[in-house]
Amino acid sequence: MTARLIIVNGGSSSGKTGIVRCLQAVLPEPWLGFSVDDFVDALPATMDGGLEIGPGGEVSVGPAFRELEAAWTAGIITMCRAGGRVIVDDVFLGGAKSQQRWQDAAGDVETVFVGVHCPPEIAAGRELARGDRERGMAEQQAYVVHEGVAYDIEVDSSRAESMECARQIAAHLTRT
Amino acid sequence: MTARLIIVNGGSSSGKTGIVRCLQAVLPEPWLGFSVDDFVDALPATMDGGLEIGPGGEVSVGPAFRELEAAWTAGIITMCRAGGRVIVDDVFLGGAKSQQRWQDAAGDVETVFVGVHCPPEIAAGRELARGDRERGMAEQQAYVVHEGVAYDIEVDSSRAESMECARQIAAHLTRT
Amino acid sequence: MTARLIIVNGGSSSGKTGIVRCLQAVLPEPWLGFSVDDFVDALPATMDGGLEIGPGGEVSVGPAFRELEAAWTAGIITMCRAGGRVIVDDVFLGGAKSQQRWQDAAGDVETVFVGVHCPPEIAAGRELARGDRERGMAEQQAYVVHEGVAYDIEVDSSRAESMECARQIAAHLTRT
Amino acid sequence: MTARLIIVNGGSSSGKTGIVRCLQAVLPEPWLGFSVDDFVDALPATMDGGLEIGPGGEVSVGPAFRELEAAWTAGIITMCRAGGRVIVDDVFLGGAKSQQRWQDAAGDVETVFVGVHCPPEIAAGRELARGDRERGMAEQQAYVVHEGVAYDIEVDSSRAESMECARQIAAHLTRT
Repeated sequence: MTARLIIVNGGSSSGKTGIVRCLQAVLPEPWLGFSVDDFVDALPATMDGGLEIGPGGEVSVGPAFRELEAAWTAGIITMCRAGGRVIVDDVFLGGAKSQQRWQDAAGDVETVFVGVHCPPEIAAGRELARGDRERGMAEQQAYVVHEGVAYDIEVDSSRAESMECARQIAAHLTRT
Repeated sequence: MTARLIIVNGGSSSGKTGIVRCLQAVLPEPWLGFSVDDFVDALPATMDGGLEIGPGGEVSVGPAFRELEAAWTAGIITMCRAGGRVIVDDVFLGGAKSQQRWQDAAGDVETVFVGVHCPPEIAAGRELARGDRERGMAEQQAYVVHEGVAYDIEVDSSRAESMECARQIAAHLTRT
Repeated sequence: MTARLIIVNGGSSSGKTGIVRCLQAVLPEPWLGFSVDDFVDALPATMDGGLEIGPGGEVSVGPAFRELEAAWTAGIITMCRAGGRVIVDDVFLGGAKSQQRWQDAAGDVETVFVGVHCPPEIAAGRELARGDRERGMAEQQAYVVHEGVAYDIEVDSSRAESMECARQIAAHLTRT
Repeated sequence: MTARLIIVNGGSSSGKTGIVRCLQAVLPEPWLGFSVDDFVDALPATMDGGLEIGPGGEVSVGPAFRELEAAWTAGIITMCRAGGRVIVDDVFLGGAKSQQRWQDAAGDVETVFVGVHCPPEIAAGRELARGDRERGMAEQQAYVVHEGVAYDIEVDSSRAESMECARQIAAHLTRT
């Protein structure tokens, strides 16, 4: 396995974070696990051109968000070049464009793209069950985040537990 | 103000995180706020050579921790070089050596070092009041993290609220 | 539906809390949702005769815990008698004895017992995925909490999502 | 000390929860610590006649909230009568009326009322520093919650740490 960066993409409440924790547990080397949520939490609480969530769970981001996100992304790539192995869970609100953004930043850092699928009605139920997310995000994002994205491996969290998804991903990594 | 990186150092429960949030609110530009706790949370839950907390709150870290920490630090510096402004709250368990580590990584990125002081008995009370930290860490770290460290500005969180400490730091930044 | 109290019993990481949130959402009247974890969080951080978690996830509780738990249980029953509808998620570490404790306290308050099953290997994976529970509890508790317990309705969280389990429970409640 | 119930009243971000944790640590017997926030968390996520927070941090509650709150309060009093010792942190949005509500429910259960004062500008700074509360609540509530309320003991969290406030309260309890 020569990959240094794993990008796990899926809609809100599709189960990405749990899959990342299981993946860290099953992979033989220590991998750092970050999330785009960590980046959002690092932003000032109020900010012009930042992130806004509409009444139906629509997420929109402004230019200041994009600038700082580019700096964050560059930092993640440096962590890989500096000897780290990094898993990032992200939400490709821009679909294929979001993937291109990571590919451009990664350059020759070997990257594996993982798609986490979950039907919108299942994700909406999980959003309600977890109780800490704005309602509507799960349904809004379930399909749009995968539009035009090319994956190295895809899992379906409505058909397999987080640990089983992690094992499928790990098996793919060791094969390549 | 030309600084791109602010390192806020203090013992556990000295009030660093609250000061960083206030600092993000009072500074005119958007600054990203990260913590060494974010790095610790990014590690696998169990890891050889990782971080251990002893029964009295003594924190010790192994070689795998140090390697990944170096990668994380390099990533933070890249975020500054790529146009971001970053505040990091850290705990200099190695005192002056920990500061040197940041200075070596930062190179020519303009860095401001902030010391957050809090007497051990006050920090221990806050540790108990917050209820989510291993008991004893506050007392263990109160003095040792400042040993041999040279600061650009120092605040005392037992004598001033987080917001007041943030204003003192912001005033220093705009003067320089 | 005349029930005033629903006791949801299952091992750690079997998915009880998510099922309770979904149940609150699908039931027509407002139900209060409490957990034995709320009671544990209400205890002093350190206490003689309290709750201890062993290295393999074994939970043991002392006499002071049992006395305060009896007071808490009596309080929950009063909430039902005073016009509230209450769902409690609990972990019957004592199996049939734990159920008897609730039955004795409830008296003539109409109570529905719900069993949440989840095979130990699945619960252990979820424990790892959520990342905030002592490892081993899920496996320790998966079967023992159901020993000798008589349920009004049982669900299996490894075969149905939280929302689907909640709908099964709600359907049972409206039938009776 | 014969009190069985301690009601700690203060505005949002005045430091009540930290004072309660310290009080549990310094009192010789085990006391249960609950908060009106626990009650709010027990409500269904969406509910007609529940709790709403306005854009400036104004909290308003409807009839369904009041009914369930009365049931919760009755349950707390039962916990005291059943042998428990209970500390509740509350926000007296109705001032003297909120106190009367507790007095009526408590009957002959010996109750101690504690007032936690904190100037609005200090509480607003702490609200920002903690980063997990709707902005504006601290300032809205700082004075109104104390209107017409009679206390057994009062503390000022802007002049003393949580632990020192707890010691003042504990000293009062042992004197009476």
